[in-house]
Amino acid sequence: MNPAPVPERLLLGPGPSPVPQRVLQAMASPVLGHLDPAFLAVMDETMTLLRQAFLTVNNLTIPVSGTGSGGMEAAVMNLVEPGTRIVVVTAGYFGERIAEMARRAGAEVVTVPAPWGHPADLKAVEDAVRGTGARVLAAVHVETSTGVLQPLPPLVEIAHRHGAFLLVDAVTSLGGVELRVDDWGVDLLYSATQKCLNAPPGLAPLTANDRVREAIAGRTTRVLSWYFDLSLLSTYWGAERVYHHTAPISSVYALREALRIVHEEGLEARWARHRATAAMLWDGLEEMGLTPFVAQEHRAPTLTTITVPEGVDDGAVRRRLLQDYSIEIAGGFGPLKGRVFRVGLMGAGSTSRIVLTFLGALRESLRAEGWRPGRRAA
Amino acid sequence: MNPAPVPERLLLGPGPSPVPQRVLQAMASPVLGHLDPAFLAVMDETMTLLRQAFLTVNNLTIPVSGTGSGGMEAAVMNLVEPGTRIVVVTAGYFGERIAEMARRAGAEVVTVPAPWGHPADLKAVEDAVRGTGARVLAAVHVETSTGVLQPLPPLVEIAHRHGAFLLVDAVTSLGGVELRVDDWGVDLLYSATQKCLNAPPGLAPLTANDRVREAIAGRTTRVLSWYFDLSLLSTYWGAERVYHHTAPISSVYALREALRIVHEEGLEARWARHRATAAMLWDGLEEMGLTPFVAQEHRAPTLTTITVPEGVDDGAVRRRLLQDYSIEIAGGFGPLKGRVFRVGLMGAGSTSRIVLTFLGALRESLRAEGWRPGRRAA
Repeated sequence: MNPAPVPERLLLGPGPSPVPQRVLQAMASPVLGHLDPAFLAVMDETMTLLRQAFLTVNNLTIPVSGTGSGGMEAAVMNLVEPGTRIVVVTAGYFGERIAEMARRAGAEVVTVPAPWGHPADLKAVEDAVRGTGARVLAAVHVETSTGVLQPLPPLVEIAHRHGAFLLVDAVTSLGGVELRVDDWGVDLLYSATQKCLNAPPGLAPLTANDRVREAIAGRTTRVLSWYFDLSLLSTYWGAERVYHHTAPISSVYALREALRIVHEEGLEARWARHRATAAMLWDGLEEMGLTPFVAQEHRAPTLTTITVPEGVDDGAVRRRLLQDYSIEIAGGFGPLKGRVFRVGLMGAGSTSRIVLTFLGALRESLRAEGWRPGRRAA
Repeated sequence: MNPAPVPERLLLGPGPSPVPQRVLQAMASPVLGHLDPAFLAVMDETMTLLRQAFLTVNNLTIPVSGTGSGGMEAAVMNLVEPGTRIVVVTAGYFGERIAEMARRAGAEVVTVPAPWGHPADLKAVEDAVRGTGARVLAAVHVETSTGVLQPLPPLVEIAHRHGAFLLVDAVTSLGGVELRVDDWGVDLLYSATQKCLNAPPGLAPLTANDRVREAIAGRTTRVLSWYFDLSLLSTYWGAERVYHHTAPISSVYALREALRIVHEEGLEARWARHRATAAMLWDGLEEMGLTPFVAQEHRAPTLTTITVPEGVDDGAVRRRLLQDYSIEIAGGFGPLKGRVFRVGLMGAGSTSRIVLTFLGALRESLRAEGWRPGRRAA
């Protein structure tokens, strides 16, 4: 048994991201009962702040009691029934996970793959949706496995033109990248707390418009998951306050505090900050002779993939960053295993000081592993 | 927006229970990445402490990333397939919830109901299991809706005599009531953090023996839930460390600290303390002229239901307890709505001082609502 406190890391991987002290302290607030009037007030404020973060007036806007993957499962399981046709853009690991969940739920799944590192081919997406009876089109806004930003408005247009719902994974975009649920017309969207919101992992903010709620109410089969049944959840988070399950009280405190910080800064200012620090990172990398993996026009400002220079062991570099500088970044997986570093600049982790710190530590760690500046990667 | 800190309550409802300061502080520890070697060490210690708390050597002993209901869903969804015959003892709300989840997962569900406030009729249970091809028998150890303790060894015997697995809900027993997973032969069991372990809600400790793991490995259909797929979860918590979802880091810290406190006291001492304080509560209630709802031989020491005296509005009494004394207890629901108070003495909430405090506050609150001592309830 190790009674030592855990080390302090600079979290620059794909999440969890750095958690501000205010948010950690909120986690340590006294626990209330899940039906205590004082906690119901916390829930109300959290929902209001979430609507502001999503830029939506959707009544059903709640934190699901699971991590981002729990939000994904809630979204998929509520919208698909056995036999529902769903088209999923799979341009990375998380798109593939949506497809996998939909298959388990009995859906008829059509994937529209794109090479990892590229956004979807819109013509291929429209071909898969047009005239096929597809009820749902699903896509990932920022693909955490590749760092590609997938513009959403064209996907909304395609989905709605053919009578489908657009289901979006906004795990690595909410609070860091422009996202306008109502203006753009996204129907169902989920995110996570531990990325650009800077709360600890454990909750999945989710929002659904009334068309989605009506579709769920009109299902001919029951939602396979009782735990993630949005109709039941909405009676606990809504005016009825019907007990469903015991909410993760402390995680809701943390999310509320994290959202307050988001709104103190302002969404537009926050998006601009993420763009500016990402640009600074990309410039710094290129000056060092390193190459971002994704073409500039498709890069997400919240997560950058960097091509591992030839002859360099990516694991050794990451271990050095962790051991010598207490900085966490991640490697690639799937087809990108060993080929990229993944670096998140998310929320409180997206500052010019952190960019400089990281660039310096990366340079030293690469050098220590035998890399020489100027030797550009292929 | 309300920036005020939340009030401090004495949590004596059916959970969440009082969280010690040490555990709250653990929640506020710096967040680590879910694959950080320092966090992997936290996971290992947490699993070791969980095995000690369950009295099991089961390798698959992990906290599921959801509340107790998430643990229930994980247990049900992994063990049943469409068409699986499952017998569920429904002697209260939580037994009925297991049945509901199993139905959604496509199981053929047979319920063995018992009146709320009574344990199962073992003959009826055996009749439902015998010769019916039942693969699973499910029951609740301490039914949180009634306060009945259901002895497990006879259920294990029935299940195993007829080739079925015993699936147990130990949400309101783990850490407060004698529970011996391996000695008794329980096959699959889940609990929650916010009851007798005194951590905030958000995780569901779960343990499965190798027979269950083999049964899961031998399924002919996939587990409907990807998020709760135990085979996938076991490769993250096991030696492989394969990424599945981002673990709720801070909640794992809290659980680890809470389990350390359990083991500092010792399980046997803890069970004895819960029995002693419950006896003190029951004596005090009867001295006041109040009647526990459940016959003494079936009462759980962790959760007591008290019959609401005739002519007393239970909601008014509970509001008064909350407003005048900042003490939370709960009312009944389902058939017990308005008929019982539910009082939890769980973990740190199970002390002689708290019993005296509660008895005094209950007496004053009942009096303020027109009740006179000595007027015994029917």
